[in-house]
Amino acid sequence: MHIMIIGGAGMLGRRVAAKLAKDGELGGKPVTALTLVDVFESAAPEGFTGTLRLERRDLSQPGVAEELVALRPDVVLHLAAIVSSEAEADFEKGYAINLDGTRALFEAIRLAGDDYCPRVVFTSSLAVFGAPLPDPIGDDQILTPLTSYGTQKAIGELLLADYSRRGFFDGIGIRLPTICIRPGRPNRAASGFFSNILREPLKGEPAVLPVDRSIRHWFASPEAAAGFILHAAALDGAALGDRRNLTLPGVCVSVAEQIEALRRVAGDQAVALIRDEPDPAIARIIESWPRSFDTKRANELGFKADASMDQIIRLHLQSEAAE
Amino acid sequence: MHIMIIGGAGMLGRRVAAKLAKDGELGGKPVTALTLVDVFESAAPEGFTGTLRLERRDLSQPGVAEELVALRPDVVLHLAAIVSSEAEADFEKGYAINLDGTRALFEAIRLAGDDYCPRVVFTSSLAVFGAPLPDPIGDDQILTPLTSYGTQKAIGELLLADYSRRGFFDGIGIRLPTICIRPGRPNRAASGFFSNILREPLKGEPAVLPVDRSIRHWFASPEAAAGFILHAAALDGAALGDRRNLTLPGVCVSVAEQIEALRRVAGDQAVALIRDEPDPAIARIIESWPRSFDTKRANELGFKADASMDQIIRLHLQSEAAE
Repeated sequence: MHIMIIGGAGMLGRRVAAKLAKDGELGGKPVTALTLVDVFESAAPEGFTGTLRLERRDLSQPGVAEELVALRPDVVLHLAAIVSSEAEADFEKGYAINLDGTRALFEAIRLAGDDYCPRVVFTSSLAVFGAPLPDPIGDDQILTPLTSYGTQKAIGELLLADYSRRGFFDGIGIRLPTICIRPGRPNRAASGFFSNILREPLKGEPAVLPVDRSIRHWFASPEAAAGFILHAAALDGAALGDRRNLTLPGVCVSVAEQIEALRRVAGDQAVALIRDEPDPAIARIIESWPRSFDTKRANELGFKADASMDQIIRLHLQSEAAE
Repeated sequence: MHIMIIGGAGMLGRRVAAKLAKDGELGGKPVTALTLVDVFESAAPEGFTGTLRLERRDLSQPGVAEELVALRPDVVLHLAAIVSSEAEADFEKGYAINLDGTRALFEAIRLAGDDYCPRVVFTSSLAVFGAPLPDPIGDDQILTPLTSYGTQKAIGELLLADYSRRGFFDGIGIRLPTICIRPGRPNRAASGFFSNILREPLKGEPAVLPVDRSIRHWFASPEAAAGFILHAAALDGAALGDRRNLTLPGVCVSVAEQIEALRRVAGDQAVALIRDEPDPAIARIIESWPRSFDTKRANELGFKADASMDQIIRLHLQSEAAE
């Protein structure tokens, strides 16, 4: 089985590749080839013994999608995207990568011939939902994105469903929860603090909390998200019917509960490093975000959330220790 | 005020142009210029005294959108589309016209410069909805199209909302009810019989009814639809907020009620011309279609449905007599 990861150098792509290399199989079938595609340099996953290709390519450039599809992967994991803040700041770049890049991939598969019909996994986003939102949000929530990124992801979902219905590929779109704890340095994304307030104190560094502690949100660890992508890759497409896109389960906690989990795992001295510094601009953005979901369909299809915020923090510590 | 109708030679475009020529104004402002764009030859509307341009152009061809936008219409009515059955039969043509043509128009407006920000009216479709559907369908129904046409229209809605949110234009997308009585000859569209069973008997011709008489559906006369497009053109965009797309009110009747209306207007001898000839293929398609809607938002914005199926039939007779 040949698996291609587009976005193979990213935070999730690397984890998915590592897990495939470690497991050596997907859905009971041996993984004999792995192709990692990214505009950045991808790293060879440790211990992979099959055919490995590291392709530094930009999907949105002419001809690239066709060349990738010519490798005939059995599974295409399309994780590559311009992130929300950049897609909002740079209108043309967001549409070029998130819409045109995705469509170029879908078109290349459609036009491949030979009855080629791979499984395609597309990572969509909670940004397809826009306020006002119920709590919890069900599987039939209307998609009314309030960002260009959310619009591009919603269009990707629609294309994925139509191409799947037509039989051009066997697609599944998954709306991942907000990733927590996001590794790396603090960034200025509006959602950054959800990770910052855990990751930085765990290292003994201070962190700023810009919103009220009562704010609740929907989380998955990077490890759970990588597992979701592979669970989606191995699902029976017929079980999806015509509804090819779904919201995935997450851990719903308030900021206060995040902080209590941090206290249980790392003690009062870690919690003391969090400084409340209200930022009305960020608070306003976060106010309009989803709080929780009723993910009945994804649950029935076997997707499983992290057990708790405590587990999410422990997974982060294990992952950091392993690096 | 300069109004451009893209799809100006179509069934609705002609009616909108005729109404603008007759009224001479839109939302209280005089219509000084009218540009009719179509791949077919448009006809000059009777009695229009302003500047008239008849442009036989294909929006999906390179450069055409830019040349049309260079005329700087204050209002763009984008009614042009490949119809559902053709978009399903010809995948590439449907996407080229319904998605790429629409996007080319939106992009040309975005890139026009000079703070150009026209009102854009986009005719979407009930085909954005896919079974299973509630009855009635509310304003928050999720869009799950089951045709390529419906997918293309749903993508158009998403783009329209994002471009409006960004301030590139002031857009409104309207999902028209099924047009009844559609003028012209019987066609093989699955929905054709809704019009055939009225139009043909009114001319003394036989008509075939392929579905059960209990089937209910959602209708507007061509005249009401043309009125909806002009009502949308004159609306205050601020009243729409971020939700730029809406389902319009219609007349919900069963086939049996259509037939009783025909009896009231044209007598038993007209009704006797309808022959029941069940077609399981058509019945299956129609089964999955919407039956009725709760169009609260459109009602509040002043859109008004035809009074009854009787009125729809009488409007058809008046319109035929005038030709």
